[in-house]
Amino acid sequence: MSSEEPSAATSRDPQPVHARGAELRTDPLTGQQVIMAPGRSLRPHAFDPEAKGESAPAYVETCPLCPGNEHQTPPTILTLTRPGSQTWAVRVVSNLYPIVSAPGSKLENGEGPAPSAATGVHELVIETPEHNRDLPDRDAEEMRLLLEAFAQRLSHLEGRRATKHVVIFKNHGAEAGASLQHPHSQIAALDFVPLEVRRRVRAARRYLEANASCVVCDIVRHETEARTRIVRESDEFLVFAPYASLTAGQVLVVPRIHAPSFGTASRVQREDLGRVLPALLGRVRDAFAGPSYNLVLHTAPKRSRNDAALHWYWELTPRLTRTGGLELGTGLAINTMLPEDVAALLRP
Amino acid sequence: MSSEEPSAATSRDPQPVHARGAELRTDPLTGQQVIMAPGRSLRPHAFDPEAKGESAPAYVETCPLCPGNEHQTPPTILTLTRPGSQTWAVRVVSNLYPIVSAPGSKLENGEGPAPSAATGVHELVIETPEHNRDLPDRDAEEMRLLLEAFAQRLSHLEGRRATKHVVIFKNHGAEAGASLQHPHSQIAALDFVPLEVRRRVRAARRYLEANASCVVCDIVRHETEARTRIVRESDEFLVFAPYASLTAGQVLVVPRIHAPSFGTASRVQREDLGRVLPALLGRVRDAFAGPSYNLVLHTAPKRSRNDAALHWYWELTPRLTRTGGLELGTGLAINTMLPEDVAALLRP
Repeated sequence: MSSEEPSAATSRDPQPVHARGAELRTDPLTGQQVIMAPGRSLRPHAFDPEAKGESAPAYVETCPLCPGNEHQTPPTILTLTRPGSQTWAVRVVSNLYPIVSAPGSKLENGEGPAPSAATGVHELVIETPEHNRDLPDRDAEEMRLLLEAFAQRLSHLEGRRATKHVVIFKNHGAEAGASLQHPHSQIAALDFVPLEVRRRVRAARRYLEANASCVVCDIVRHETEARTRIVRESDEFLVFAPYASLTAGQVLVVPRIHAPSFGTASRVQREDLGRVLPALLGRVRDAFAGPSYNLVLHTAPKRSRNDAALHWYWELTPRLTRTGGLELGTGLAINTMLPEDVAALLRP
Repeated sequence: MSSEEPSAATSRDPQPVHARGAELRTDPLTGQQVIMAPGRSLRPHAFDPEAKGESAPAYVETCPLCPGNEHQTPPTILTLTRPGSQTWAVRVVSNLYPIVSAPGSKLENGEGPAPSAATGVHELVIETPEHNRDLPDRDAEEMRLLLEAFAQRLSHLEGRRATKHVVIFKNHGAEAGASLQHPHSQIAALDFVPLEVRRRVRAARRYLEANASCVVCDIVRHETEARTRIVRESDEFLVFAPYASLTAGQVLVVPRIHAPSFGTASRVQREDLGRVLPALLGRVRDAFAGPSYNLVLHTAPKRSRNDAALHWYWELTPRLTRTGGLELGTGLAINTMLPEDVAALLRP
C-alpha cells in the first residue's frame, strides 16, 4: 500500500531548474535572511483568476499534477495508494522550481559579503489525483495517506546527513503564494537552521528555564481556561486563535501531548488530526468565502528533536489582508481582526 | 503658501473610528509584536480592481479625497498651496481608520498577558487634488510641497511629548495594502519604538563600534565601487537594489550625506529627492507594468535623532510576488529576482 518508487529517470524527465543557484544572503541592516532563488521566477502560473477551487473541474488536461501527466513532473519519490487501488492517492516528486539548490550547485553571483549557497531538498506533495478535491472535502483515508506521506518524508529527509531543518507547508490559492491550483503541499529540507527558527528555539528554552514548563503547553492550559479564543477541541488537539495572532484569521492546531517533533505523532494523533484539519478548513472556507491560506508545520529542527522546550503544531494563516508600508518599515504586524472574534466565527 | 489650518471642527465632521481601541500584543513564541486594530477593518475599499491608476480619471465624485469632498475627511491639519493658487496642493488630515488609538482610549479586551494600548497619531497625506496624478507624473513644485509636508509633520509630531517614533509611508495599489486609489501617503507617530526598529538601531550601533563607521555609509561606498546594483546616481542620493533585498524589485534611496533623521534634510537634498523619486517610480511603473508598491521612510526614532550610528533613507518595495508558507514558517524571505538583475532593469 505504501511504496518508495524512485522510478528510473530518463533524459526526457523534467529535472529541477538549478540554472541559477539559490543563495543565502543576510541583510546587514536587520540581520534578516533572504534566499535568492531566481530560478523560481520561471514557474508557470496556472491559475484561472476567476475560478475558485470549488468550481474547478476534477480533471484538467493541461495540469501537470493531474493523472496522465506524470511525465511532466520529475520522477516520483514516493507513491501512496488506497488499499486495493491501482492508481496513486498521494505522490511526492522533486519540486521543479526549488527554493533551495542541490548541494554542490555553483553560485552564479558570489560577489558581496559572505555569500553562501542555500542548499537542501525541495519536494512537492501531490495530495490527491483530483484537481478540485480541496482539503475540507477529504475523507479519513485520504487524510491518513497525506499525513503518512508527510511523516515518511520528514523521517527520510531528516535522515539526510546535511539536513538541519525540515519545513512542511501548503500554499492554497494565488494570494498564499501558490502557482498551481491542483491540491499540493511542499516539503523543504534546509541544510541550515533559519535565524528566526533559532530565535524561536532560544525563546522556548528561556521560557522552560524560567518557568519549568513548555511555553506551548502553558498556552494550551491558558487558552483552555480563558475559552474566548478556542475554535475547536478534540481528544488530541486544541484548536485556537492565538492571543497575538499576527494576521487576521490565524489559527493554531496544537497537540495536547507534549512532543518536539511531528515525527513522533502516534497513529491515534494522526487519525484525529485527519478529522480536525478538514473540519477546520471547511469552517474557514465558509466563514471567509474560500480564501487563500497557508498551512505550516512547526516542528523541531533536526538537532533539537529531543529538546523538551519544543512542542510541534500546525499554523493556519488565511490570507485575508495585505501588509503595507508600516509593517515593512517597523516589523510590526497589523491585525484588523481580534482573535476572540475569529474564534467566535470559526467555532462549529 | 504654507499654513497650519486646524479648521474649526463641527459635529458633522467625521472623526477617527476609535470604537475599539488598538492594542499592542507580543507573540510569546517569537517575540513578534502585533497591533490589534479592529477598527481598521471598517475601512471602505474604493478600488476598481480593473482600473490601474494610469487610466483613472482626474476627478472622481465619490472619492473622499477629491476636491469638494473635504467634508468627508476629518478636519484639515495642514494645507500647502502652490504660490498664487487658491486651492490646496497637499492636505494632511487625521486618518479616519487609525492603526493606533488616541492616548487614553479604553481597550475593549484587556484579558491576557501584559496588554497595552497601542497609542499614537495616524495622519493621512492627500498628495494632490488630482485623483490620477501618480508620483511619477509630478513636477518639481508638487514634489517640493509633498516633501515639505512630510518634514513639517515629522517635526510637529516629534514635538508631541508622547511620540517615540515616526513612520512616513505610502501604500500604492491594493496589493500594497492601500484601500483608496487617490494618491495619498500616511504618517504614524507611535508612542513606542517597535521591537524591530530597536533591533535595527542596536545593529547599527554594534556596527559603528566594531568598524568606526556608519553601516549605511559603508554600504553606499561598497555599492558605488561594485556598481552592479546601482539603479541611479544623483548629486545627493545613491539609488540601488540592496545586496540582500528581501523581496523582488526592492530599491533604497540613500542620501550621500550622513544624517540620522530626514528632519535635517536640506533644501538642496529635498529638491534632489523631488527629482529622484518620480524618475525612479516612473522606471518601476514601466518595468513592472504599474505595480502596487510601498515607499517607506526609515528615519531615526525620536530619542536617537542625534545617534551617529543611524542614517536615514527611503525604501521602495514593489509588490511583485506573494509570500508563502515557507516564509511564514521560518521567517526567511524568498526573493526570486536578483538585485543585480533589478538594477539592470531599472537603470535609466
